[in-house]
Amino acid sequence: MAGKTNVPTGVTGNERLNALSDGVFAIAITLLVLELRVPETLPHGGVITALVEMAPKFGGHVLSFVVLGMYWVGHHNMFRHIPRHDRTLQWLNIFYLMFIGAMPFFAGLLVQHSEDTFSLVAYSANLAMVGLSQDAIWWYASRKRRLVDPNIYSDLVAFVHRRILLAPALYLIAIGLALVSHIGAIMLVIAVPLAYIFPGPLDSYHHSQLSGSQHHTPSLGE
Amino acid sequence: MAGKTNVPTGVTGNERLNALSDGVFAIAITLLVLELRVPETLPHGGVITALVEMAPKFGGHVLSFVVLGMYWVGHHNMFRHIPRHDRTLQWLNIFYLMFIGAMPFFAGLLVQHSEDTFSLVAYSANLAMVGLSQDAIWWYASRKRRLVDPNIYSDLVAFVHRRILLAPALYLIAIGLALVSHIGAIMLVIAVPLAYIFPGPLDSYHHSQLSGSQHHTPSLGE
Amino acid sequence: MAGKTNVPTGVTGNERLNALSDGVFAIAITLLVLELRVPETLPHGGVITALVEMAPKFGGHVLSFVVLGMYWVGHHNMFRHIPRHDRTLQWLNIFYLMFIGAMPFFAGLLVQHSEDTFSLVAYSANLAMVGLSQDAIWWYASRKRRLVDPNIYSDLVAFVHRRILLAPALYLIAIGLALVSHIGAIMLVIAVPLAYIFPGPLDSYHHSQLSGSQHHTPSLGE
Amino acid sequence: MAGKTNVPTGVTGNERLNALSDGVFAIAITLLVLELRVPETLPHGGVITALVEMAPKFGGHVLSFVVLGMYWVGHHNMFRHIPRHDRTLQWLNIFYLMFIGAMPFFAGLLVQHSEDTFSLVAYSANLAMVGLSQDAIWWYASRKRRLVDPNIYSDLVAFVHRRILLAPALYLIAIGLALVSHIGAIMLVIAVPLAYIFPGPLDSYHHSQLSGSQHHTPSLGE
Repeated sequence: MAGKTNVPTGVTGNERLNALSDGVFAIAITLLVLELRVPETLPHGGVITALVEMAPKFGGHVLSFVVLGMYWVGHHNMFRHIPRHDRTLQWLNIFYLMFIGAMPFFAGLLVQHSEDTFSLVAYSANLAMVGLSQDAIWWYASRKRRLVDPNIYSDLVAFVHRRILLAPALYLIAIGLALVSHIGAIMLVIAVPLAYIFPGPLDSYHHSQLSGSQHHTPSLGE
Repeated sequence: MAGKTNVPTGVTGNERLNALSDGVFAIAITLLVLELRVPETLPHGGVITALVEMAPKFGGHVLSFVVLGMYWVGHHNMFRHIPRHDRTLQWLNIFYLMFIGAMPFFAGLLVQHSEDTFSLVAYSANLAMVGLSQDAIWWYASRKRRLVDPNIYSDLVAFVHRRILLAPALYLIAIGLALVSHIGAIMLVIAVPLAYIFPGPLDSYHHSQLSGSQHHTPSLGE
Repeated sequence: MAGKTNVPTGVTGNERLNALSDGVFAIAITLLVLELRVPETLPHGGVITALVEMAPKFGGHVLSFVVLGMYWVGHHNMFRHIPRHDRTLQWLNIFYLMFIGAMPFFAGLLVQHSEDTFSLVAYSANLAMVGLSQDAIWWYASRKRRLVDPNIYSDLVAFVHRRILLAPALYLIAIGLALVSHIGAIMLVIAVPLAYIFPGPLDSYHHSQLSGSQHHTPSLGE
Repeated sequence: MAGKTNVPTGVTGNERLNALSDGVFAIAITLLVLELRVPETLPHGGVITALVEMAPKFGGHVLSFVVLGMYWVGHHNMFRHIPRHDRTLQWLNIFYLMFIGAMPFFAGLLVQHSEDTFSLVAYSANLAMVGLSQDAIWWYASRKRRLVDPNIYSDLVAFVHRRILLAPALYLIAIGLALVSHIGAIMLVIAVPLAYIFPGPLDSYHHSQLSGSQHHTPSLGE
């Protein structure tokens, strides 16, 4: 009874953790555009020439936007399975957001100095850290079913791990590749989000769960 | 039963999709103001002269603010009919937000180089992309009643399409017009939001539905 | 029955209107700090001298922060009485947010060119527009009890009007005063938020209502 | 009855206060990254040299990010015990947010002029103000159980005070120390968040409460 009396009466779910995360994503995604600046003095051909010359910058902008979109979708979908948090999860999420928030810097670096391989290496390394810190969140939340549904399937936990770790694995490969082939590494970095845009088995799984089908045998473990 | 056990227990509605979208709108709308900078060294007439000289910039600012407001209202009202999402809708919304987030860039381009027709063309093209990507969201969500109420009227679905597509159609006309008459195209671009500010049949429709009138015959299909 | 079938099933309350508004306030309030920039090359006395020289800028920053806080509290408290919206209210709120979003510009103008009376005039004029557009929201929502509780007391409606209009009235007086006495106008502009920080009869009223006292005679009409 | 009729029908909880706060945190945390700018003209060694030369800036960035994270977690956890607000609490929170919003300025000052002791003093003083204004919120809300659960334990109230005040106490010590040992003060400022990252008795307490254990004797008072 005494215990009940002091149960916190304010927000106890993930509302504010989500609000902070969505805020950081929204700002990071929108600050990217600050890298796109038309020079005050136009080139000889006017605005159209200026825009054509900026084509690589637009490309970098779209890439970074899509990458942040990919991670936002992943964060969103992962937290569907994590209905609550504790201090450690708050901090793991803050470190995750630190790498998300650093994206405008690394995107600017890539766009301004795309000819220097190390701008791609740094860009990829930061993105790998995003993925690794996301997996740390999942590892912490799902281990011993600490912050997830106690009856969650083991193969679902494992599938989410594999799915999260695919991106940082590809970014680490891109870092190695960059030392050999600059263009190859760029192609790989561009390709990573394609692995996440299209619906996969996890989506069918969510869909069937939400439809309430009772006789579904999950087949996420391949 | 096994199925029920693994239903995700966190947020499953559109809360976070809306939060990300509202965040991007709020930031894009507020970043517009960064284009408005009084020069550190004032002209001869002081602040008042500086402000008068900035009048076209203020005009561009108000226009872009109103356009973003128009799209926010449209996004908001459209999502009243889309209570849930899947991965594809998340991505369609992210591409939509990419064009919204690009507004401060194109608004800055228009304001800084308003004498160059291509700044108006680029500005209109980006706004047309906002409208077209919004229609892609509606098309995906409403087709086969995928993410909308299964009993939604066909003429409501069609009316929303027409309403969404009006803006990009006008912006595409403005692009063509710009090649002929710069001032005519500017007038058209300024006029577009006027078609959306005033309440129309969709509002009466929403209103009657929310008022719970049972014997209402929808007349959206004209 | 057919009507009920098509009631929108997504968000229909003010959640997203509030989210957009809180986002714009949060960004406007935080962008103010971008006006505060220590010069890269420090003055002779180092950081401490630089900070002392910036004292007027800090003062302007605190003033603008407090003014935005004042309007946020007012927006928040006003919308406690407006549980729903329509297209017109969405647009009135967007125009309101346009003046809120313009604050970092006018605050920067004031801080950079505080010696020029017209920077204070422009700053006050924008703040007057915030207040007048807020009153337009209240007028629209409360007239014929359009979007408020149909049984709301008339004297509460009138009291909220007076309370909202006090600030723009004072800012308009400050504009007139600025033409006579620069320092007097500054003093008045600084004083405005003081009229709103301290709890008043509206707070006691809210408090008594929330406490559920049934035999309370509202005395807001003085 | 008349009383009940006029109970505000919109948002009356802390949703918008939290939304504004989370927005300011998200923006402050993301604006930090704007201090990190690679020079347009690279040093001789290219991007990798530029990044290595920026190492102290990265360090300052991580520190400020962690400090803002620390305060966000504290704000979040404190407001779990404060389910409602009044005008005074709104204003105390706004002043709190003013110091949070000033962080990008003081972080930039520290990173740009780290060799000048007063940049560390100013940085620490602002952080001390954050902590002191947070304690003012707790003091106001918990005194006479004004805005907290009336049955909250006195030792919980006191424990939260001590926990909040630890940080500003350490920052004030750092200010004193800075006058003697620059490097010592830096070490202390870096160490402060470590006192908050790891779970402590308050977390076990929350955990046991949320688990619904009835026979728990709180031992927060040491």
